[in-house]
Formats: sequence, structure tokens, C-alpha cells
Amino acid sequence: VTADTPRRSEAAGDAARRPATAADPLLVLVQDEAALRAVATAPILRGLLVDATRPPTAEERTATVLLHGMAQFPETVKYIAQLPNLRLVQTMNAGFEWWIGHVPDGVSLSNARGAHGRAVAEWSVAMLLEHYRLLPYFAARQAERTWDRQVGRSLGGLRVAVIGAGDIGQHLRRMLLPFDAEVTLVDVRQGDSVISPDAFRDRQAEFDAISLAVPLMPATAKMVDAAFLARMKDGAVLVNGARGGLVDTDALMAACGSGRLTALLDVTDPEPLPSEHPLWTTPGVTITPHVAGVTEGMEDRARAVAVEQISMFARGETPSNVVLGPMAEGR
Amino acid sequence: VTADTPRRSEAAGDAARRPATAADPLLVLVQDEAALRAVATAPILRGLLVDATRPPTAEERTATVLLHGMAQFPETVKYIAQLPNLRLVQTMNAGFEWWIGHVPDGVSLSNARGAHGRAVAEWSVAMLLEHYRLLPYFAARQAERTWDRQVGRSLGGLRVAVIGAGDIGQHLRRMLLPFDAEVTLVDVRQGDSVISPDAFRDRQAEFDAISLAVPLMPATAKMVDAAFLARMKDGAVLVNGARGGLVDTDALMAACGSGRLTALLDVTDPEPLPSEHPLWTTPGVTITPHVAGVTEGMEDRARAVAVEQISMFARGETPSNVVLGPMAEGR
Repeated sequence: VTADTPRRSEAAGDAARRPATAADPLLVLVQDEAALRAVATAPILRGLLVDATRPPTAEERTATVLLHGMAQFPETVKYIAQLPNLRLVQTMNAGFEWWIGHVPDGVSLSNARGAHGRAVAEWSVAMLLEHYRLLPYFAARQAERTWDRQVGRSLGGLRVAVIGAGDIGQHLRRMLLPFDAEVTLVDVRQGDSVISPDAFRDRQAEFDAISLAVPLMPATAKMVDAAFLARMKDGAVLVNGARGGLVDTDALMAACGSGRLTALLDVTDPEPLPSEHPLWTTPGVTITPHVAGVTEGMEDRARAVAVEQISMFARGETPSNVVLGPMAEGR
Repeated sequence: VTADTPRRSEAAGDAARRPATAADPLLVLVQDEAALRAVATAPILRGLLVDATRPPTAEERTATVLLHGMAQFPETVKYIAQLPNLRLVQTMNAGFEWWIGHVPDGVSLSNARGAHGRAVAEWSVAMLLEHYRLLPYFAARQAERTWDRQVGRSLGGLRVAVIGAGDIGQHLRRMLLPFDAEVTLVDVRQGDSVISPDAFRDRQAEFDAISLAVPLMPATAKMVDAAFLARMKDGAVLVNGARGGLVDTDALMAACGSGRLTALLDVTDPEPLPSEHPLWTTPGVTITPHVAGVTEGMEDRARAVAVEQISMFARGETPSNVVLGPMAEGR
């Protein structure tokens, strides 16, 4: 272990080694051909395609890193429990709630933050514009062949709070500013134009729209409950492109069903939403099926972020996207 | 006539006079109470409420300026023909095609450019996002209570051409940039990131979306004809938030009906679109009823711009929004 790689030696424990080089690349377990190709773009990495439904081979058991693909979660959890040298699981998602409790001791998890933020923020703007500019109303009038000039509302002067000043929140602020919306970010970590959750709570009734952009964790589960909704002003809009579990669905149906609030949702609890669920037909609720981050090229962007994160680890650095495990705790 | 007001004396002809002051305000004919209140905010202006369906009084006949409200166009045209000292008609619209041929000799027309551009650009972004993020598709699935994760397209990397680098075009560029769209403005007047109509014609097949943001004038009428549409690439989107007369409706129905192109329209020819018109049900055509510039507060914004323009005239300057008449020709 060299003096200039203390974090890696600390993080990787037994597997501590010199930074990888093109001559001595880091072994990365991957689960599909596309990931193999993406890993091949980094000279200091060497990909190995594995089948998580089989026990690991001797070579696989030497690996310190696994790049998790877009599916096969239960098999992958069983598989990684059999990898004694594993130190890092790199995902292609932004959310990581499924992994909580499923990452072995000593293993860290890094997500694909940066790959999905722009698309999720874009979805939020799309939904706000669709709502305020009455596009569903006009679509219904087109179906009736009726020219009916209702007056919508522009985003100019709209007061928008975004809970979560991370990747999605920052993109959303940048996207909303040219529309002259007043954007306030809410986060426990302070920053430019960021207010604290307590300050937000005091000012909550000021906002025309509140957008959720935080991960689902024990501390955030059902943070939008009946009391939260009661503090929102009449006619306000809740936007959820994050996770369904952030919201108490029954409380939301009550607040929207009464006509007091509007909800623009990409995620629901439960999810997928069963056909018989009353949320589908609650007045004022618009639902898209968890596609906020899903646009053409999404997997390519996620793989690029994943390879960048693994490359940091290979160079002896801590990946900037670690969210769980010893490397996250050491930050 | 003082030496420092040559433009006014030139423009206003017989009515040339010293710049207006609070002690000697400029008389402005207005057609509704709201306009009267708006004019009252400028100390150098004095509003006079008139009824355009009656012959002008002696006092009205001395006026050099009329602020035209949102309606009563034919009556107003007849009325202004009876005002011998009139030099400026100030409108509250961005488009001015109705006025061509209806402004008396020696009278200039100034529009409300700046009041509507942001709202029209916002509508264009709303329609592009709705289209590319498949919101109508998901609305139809919600109506069926079906969770169906289709993959949409983000605006990232989308090549958008905006024909017209004026107020709307500049707002549209500013709004689209945070989405990472590649925006090219097209105008006869060159500028930063502005290409000429000839250069656009050569590159037209490169663009994913083409948005119209030019006034309707003899030179632009039916500029989007069968040949224009044929130069667009397969699957491209035409956005028209400007004027229906810019587009050959039959050619557009043919191009969209075949499935080759998509059209997002706020304006149509004819307009209002009659219930029996086949454009309503042409595949790939989305229609809103001339509401791109119509949002809450629109009339207030338009009146504020109008008062600002008339104030320039009152100070002996040329209003910056003149589009027709001697003051426009003298620029």
C-alpha cells in the first residue's frame, strides 16, 4: 500500500493493492455484453462477463468490483454473498433503497447519480408545463373538435420548492429559471439558494408547486403525509419523480380527491400500480409509469457514469457516488 | 420643433411638438377602462376613453396616438380614418398582419413585442416536452389503468431550428439550452448563433424540430409549403405558435397524415378551426386554440409594453416596436 492511497487501503481492506494500470487492470465483473463493451473503454479496467445464477468461479472470487446491470436483483444479491474479496457494487440506478440491508459487510455501493438527473428534472418540467398550460384540457377539446380558448398559467413567477438539492434538484432549478419561476431548493446540506427542512416547513404554504427529489430511505419514507399535505396551499401541485414510498398514498388520495391539491406522479406506492387501485382515477392525479428517468440513451449514460465511478476506485480514489457501506461512512 | 427631436418632427409631421411633460401630457385615446388605468401610470400621458363606434369629437380629432385594445378591430379601423392628426397606433398584440393595408397614410403602428414572447416560447417548450416524453400516450394508459413503460426521448441533443430570431426565438433558445438541446436560430438579420434562410434550407434535413416564430406578412405567407415539408427529415416535428397563414394546411395534412411528420399547432388556417375541418383528426397533429401567448396576466403585460412604447413617442423618440408606417421605414 503506497502512502498516497490511504482511502483505498482503508476502504478495500484485505484487497488493498496498488492503483490499477493498463498493464495491470482492475478486474470488473459485469452482467451483460453492453456493460462489457463499456468497461472496455477504460484501459485500466478489465471486464469479465458473469452469470449470477451460477456459483462464482475461482477467478470471479478474486474480484473486488461488480457492475450491476439493470435487472436480476435477487440473483445478484445471492451471488455477491459468495464473493469474499468484493469491495464495491456499482449500480446503474439513482435510487438505491432495494440495496439497503442487501450489501454484504465491508462492501460499498455506488450509484449512477448524474446519469438520470437531467431526464428526471426534464420530466418534472414537462409535467408542470402540461398542467399549468392546460394541455390535457386542450387535448380533450381537440378530440371533440372544439376551439375553446381557456386561459392557462405561465411558469413565470411560479413559486417552486424542490426537496433535495442533489443532481435532480440542481438540474430542475437550472431548467426552470429561464421560465422566470422562483425556485427554492430544500436540503439538510446548506448551499446557494438552499433552505433547511425546518425553514421549508415554516414557509410551505407559500409554494405553488413542491417537487420531491430525495432518495427513499428510512428517514424519508412517507415524509409526505396528511400533515405535510395539509400545510400545502389550496390549488398547489405535488410533483413526485423520485420514489412512491416518499408519499402516503391514502393521504394523497384524500387531498387530491377533495379537489384541494393536484399530484403529478411518476412513481407510486404500490408500484407498479395495480389496475384496480383507486389512485388511477383520483381527480387531480396524473400518473406516468416510472419513466421520468427513462429516455433513449439512458442505459448508455448510466453505463458511462458507472465506468467513471469504477475507474475512480481503480485509481485508488473513493468513487464520488458511494451511498452505502464503509466508503460512504468514511466520507 | 427643437433641434433634438428630429425623428419625432419627421415622423409626426404636422403634429410635431415638444416632448410631453407632466405639465403638458400627451393625449392618448384608449378603448377600455383597464387601458385608461395603465396610461394613468405614466405622468407624461393623459388617457381619454373613446367609443370607436361613434364619430370622433373635436378633442379626439386633435389626438396623435391611439392605444388599441384587444378587440373591436373593424370599428377601430373606420374610427382612425377620421382622426386627421393621428401618427401612432399602439397595439397589444405581437402579430400585426390584420393591420397591413388598414393603417392610414402617415400613421405608424407599434406592437406589443416583449409582452407575449416568453409565453409563446413556453408553450413551444411545453408542446415539445409533451410530444417527446410521450405524455399523451401515458394519459391514455392512465385512462385504461395500465402501467406501460414506453421509452420516450429527452430534449438532450435534440436539434431544434427556430425560424425568427426575435423576442420569441430568443426566449425559446434560452429556455431550451438547459435541456441540452442544440438550438439554431434562422433569420435574415445575422447574429450570434443565427443562420440565414439560405443556410437553413441547405441544412433543413438535419433538424429534429422546426419552430416558427416569424410574423405573417406577404413574404412569409405559406412559407411552409409541400417543398418545405419535403425537406424535413422523417419523424421531424413542426411547431407553429406564430400564425396559421405561415403554413399550407393541405400540404401539412398530407405530410402528417402519411405518418412522416408531426405537427404541434397553436394556430391554424382557417382559424378558428371549424368543427368539420379534417386537420382536427389528422394523425400526428396536436392543436391548441391560439393560446400560446394567453396566460394569466397577459393583458396586464401587454398594456405595460404599450404604455412604455407610447411613452417613447411622447418623449420625442421612435417607439422601439414600430413595425409599419413612416417610423418603421425611417429606421
